[in-house]
Amino acid sequence: MEHRWNHFDEAGNAVMVDVTEKEITVRTAAARGRIQVSRPVFEAIAQGTAAKGDVLGVARVAGIMATKKTSELIPMCHPLMLTKAAVDFSLKEETGEIEAVCTVRLAGRTGVEMEALTGVTAALLTIYDMCKAMDRGMVLSDICLLEKSGGKSGHYERQGI
Amino acid sequence: MEHRWNHFDEAGNAVMVDVTEKEITVRTAAARGRIQVSRPVFEAIAQGTAAKGDVLGVARVAGIMATKKTSELIPMCHPLMLTKAAVDFSLKEETGEIEAVCTVRLAGRTGVEMEALTGVTAALLTIYDMCKAMDRGMVLSDICLLEKSGGKSGHYERQGI
Amino acid sequence: MEHRWNHFDEAGNAVMVDVTEKEITVRTAAARGRIQVSRPVFEAIAQGTAAKGDVLGVARVAGIMATKKTSELIPMCHPLMLTKAAVDFSLKEETGEIEAVCTVRLAGRTGVEMEALTGVTAALLTIYDMCKAMDRGMVLSDICLLEKSGGKSGHYERQGI
Amino acid sequence: MEHRWNHFDEAGNAVMVDVTEKEITVRTAAARGRIQVSRPVFEAIAQGTAAKGDVLGVARVAGIMATKKTSELIPMCHPLMLTKAAVDFSLKEETGEIEAVCTVRLAGRTGVEMEALTGVTAALLTIYDMCKAMDRGMVLSDICLLEKSGGKSGHYERQGI
Amino acid sequence: MEHRWNHFDEAGNAVMVDVTEKEITVRTAAARGRIQVSRPVFEAIAQGTAAKGDVLGVARVAGIMATKKTSELIPMCHPLMLTKAAVDFSLKEETGEIEAVCTVRLAGRTGVEMEALTGVTAALLTIYDMCKAMDRGMVLSDICLLEKSGGKSGHYERQGI
Amino acid sequence: MEHRWNHFDEAGNAVMVDVTEKEITVRTAAARGRIQVSRPVFEAIAQGTAAKGDVLGVARVAGIMATKKTSELIPMCHPLMLTKAAVDFSLKEETGEIEAVCTVRLAGRTGVEMEALTGVTAALLTIYDMCKAMDRGMVLSDICLLEKSGGKSGHYERQGI
Repeated sequence: MEHRWNHFDEAGNAVMVDVTEKEITVRTAAARGRIQVSRPVFEAIAQGTAAKGDVLGVARVAGIMATKKTSELIPMCHPLMLTKAAVDFSLKEETGEIEAVCTVRLAGRTGVEMEALTGVTAALLTIYDMCKAMDRGMVLSDICLLEKSGGKSGHYERQGI
Repeated sequence: MEHRWNHFDEAGNAVMVDVTEKEITVRTAAARGRIQVSRPVFEAIAQGTAAKGDVLGVARVAGIMATKKTSELIPMCHPLMLTKAAVDFSLKEETGEIEAVCTVRLAGRTGVEMEALTGVTAALLTIYDMCKAMDRGMVLSDICLLEKSGGKSGHYERQGI
Repeated sequence: MEHRWNHFDEAGNAVMVDVTEKEITVRTAAARGRIQVSRPVFEAIAQGTAAKGDVLGVARVAGIMATKKTSELIPMCHPLMLTKAAVDFSLKEETGEIEAVCTVRLAGRTGVEMEALTGVTAALLTIYDMCKAMDRGMVLSDICLLEKSGGKSGHYERQGI
Repeated sequence: MEHRWNHFDEAGNAVMVDVTEKEITVRTAAARGRIQVSRPVFEAIAQGTAAKGDVLGVARVAGIMATKKTSELIPMCHPLMLTKAAVDFSLKEETGEIEAVCTVRLAGRTGVEMEALTGVTAALLTIYDMCKAMDRGMVLSDICLLEKSGGKSGHYERQGI
Repeated sequence: MEHRWNHFDEAGNAVMVDVTEKEITVRTAAARGRIQVSRPVFEAIAQGTAAKGDVLGVARVAGIMATKKTSELIPMCHPLMLTKAAVDFSLKEETGEIEAVCTVRLAGRTGVEMEALTGVTAALLTIYDMCKAMDRGMVLSDICLLEKSGGKSGHYERQGI
Repeated sequence: MEHRWNHFDEAGNAVMVDVTEKEITVRTAAARGRIQVSRPVFEAIAQGTAAKGDVLGVARVAGIMATKKTSELIPMCHPLMLTKAAVDFSLKEETGEIEAVCTVRLAGRTGVEMEALTGVTAALLTIYDMCKAMDRGMVLSDICLLEKSGGKSGHYERQGI
């Protein structure tokens, strides 16, 4: 079986893979993740969005700033000039979860999946940080790529979201 | 109901909370997370650890380096002088998951939960990055604090791991 | 006349001055600055604080995060483990100015004036950035140290604030 | 009244605005700022430029390096590949002020005002840092955009400089 | 004699030189360096590559990540979007040296020599760090540019390598 | 033979080694390195130190700032609160070399060799950068630890400097 590693050379050594010859196209990616919180935390967050103690406002800034740090965190990621980054939250009343979606865009030579995943993760970790005095048992889960477009590998859309 | 926010002042504004008067004690934290991968990815990773294409070796370095970047990523985290950071992986043959545990330690005025969580997350995202050409459907989950000790809030150990 | 440079050696070369032997004491600093904005910008900011378009919320996060980057920006600053950072705003209705005050604290060997000044400046620059589509003529001014305490040089309080 | 926020979406959430479709054009920006210093500090700086204790040399390096950190400091700024950055100082004998002007340039999809403003501010803060043992009362003021060109919003030139 | 400084303006002030009008071409650079180690260190490294204690694996990641940090370290370097980075090692049995070569590539307006040199240096320093408990006398040497291509200054190849 | 790796655990995995229990002592380190330059470059640098085109002034700032970035560059280095950093140059007329020595100090739990070595290397690379338009054949060499003190491993002094 032949593995299609994208970040190792033929000798098995890690490499920031050569994308110099790739075409510059518009590329987008959206990633999603959730954090399961206790009921008091959920209600505190829900109330904060409207007024004081805006947990999600801080987490959104953290997520957007983290997309710009992706190539410093993920060793083989190319530095990229993102031209859009956004983080949106939805409060899942029935399950007590906060869902975050991070959307990233650029015109460049390589995709932005990692930037979207890094943004969503940093946003969720920030929620954890700001609520941890109330609850240390929060769990992050379902962090995955929802969709990507652009580039040679084409369009990807997650099934059964 | 009174919320015990640790990162907002009385006016509801975000703040890097004052820990100046807290005692310097030895503090540790361990966090855990998993990534669900396809069978070919699982096997490629398992083979790589022994020889070429060492995905976990790169992910370990990424995780350790990320613990040192926590206060740059999580807005209200204090800068900390970590005195230990480690990332360990286990391959869950039966479920096709890679599990990562990040352990962090310091003698300081505030806990290191966020550092452990940031380290484990960066390690898992690096696995995603290095295998994404084979499988874009990988999912990160079960990212949580396993244990912490030190400081006034005392010992925490996750139940029913 | 003998100049008391704190960041040059006897040969006139820049140096990160030796503070190894200085005592660890609690040190605080507060810095202040203002941004003069047009009336429409002022009103938009005032409305945003209560609900949507929270300019000051984003600027506060930027200011707090910038305090942690001070030693990366100011060449001869020592890296410091801040134990508190906060940014407060007041809206000066009569003059159309937004005032920011950044307060920083730590127990350490050297003062935190530069951290407070860096925090207040980054907060004001963020206000500029988020409002610049409405008005490019905004001016930052009156950026200065309000107060510092701790260390051998003792207490400083700005006269005639 | 409709506010033309450039960094909030319709729901009022902060966003790194989408500039993907904007044209790549040459864009320049120049920003200016001043620091008011005491007479002994002024003279020390003036003497230093010619020989030892080169405060302005260090401040220039700090300003240029800070332009490259803009997108790490200002949350909604796009990462940009600057193709020029310079900082110039003039000594205002009559008022005891040091004036700094930072000029930035690139061929890109969005303007470089924030980079010029960040550069000029970091340069002035570095002057403060290097002279603060002599005088803690220094004040930064008049930090503003002098001129910008390129892009759809066109040319801007500050009136009554 | 006229000096062709590339990083000073006519007044002798440091500047990040204007490359805005330069053509975008494919540019590559390769740099090399060596570390002289003691025999026990050499053998430990040689054994580690095959199994446990993979010094070179960690050093390779460090070198690749450092190429992306070049413009943060070298004050007048332009920020660049590298499209390839690799580090290769060879073990010189006869001399007890480890040789590192770093290769970098991009399509851009300025060359990548400094990125290649920074990558090779960080890789060698990481070897030093990981072996320093065994031997503090290791020496880095022969760090130089091997080859560069692209841009107006054309092809350069080191003679007598 | 048993290797005393300081940055691998018993399983051979890289780790940021636990120094939590180490004593806080004053620790210093000095590192040295050289860059061989052509005669025109040497003369240009020598003239620049006295007046315009101050290559060594910029390189000194770069070296000092790099000491603060060590733990971001060298994967297993602990983040440290340096309390002194300096870089000194000497011009070796007879050999056409510039020599740099970087001295670092702190009161902490682990040594600062890597900080001194990183500082000296960044200073030399900056000289290369600023002179490379005149000469691409410059070579960095003899980068080594001169001396260290403090901590359990005690005093080290390089023989036959």
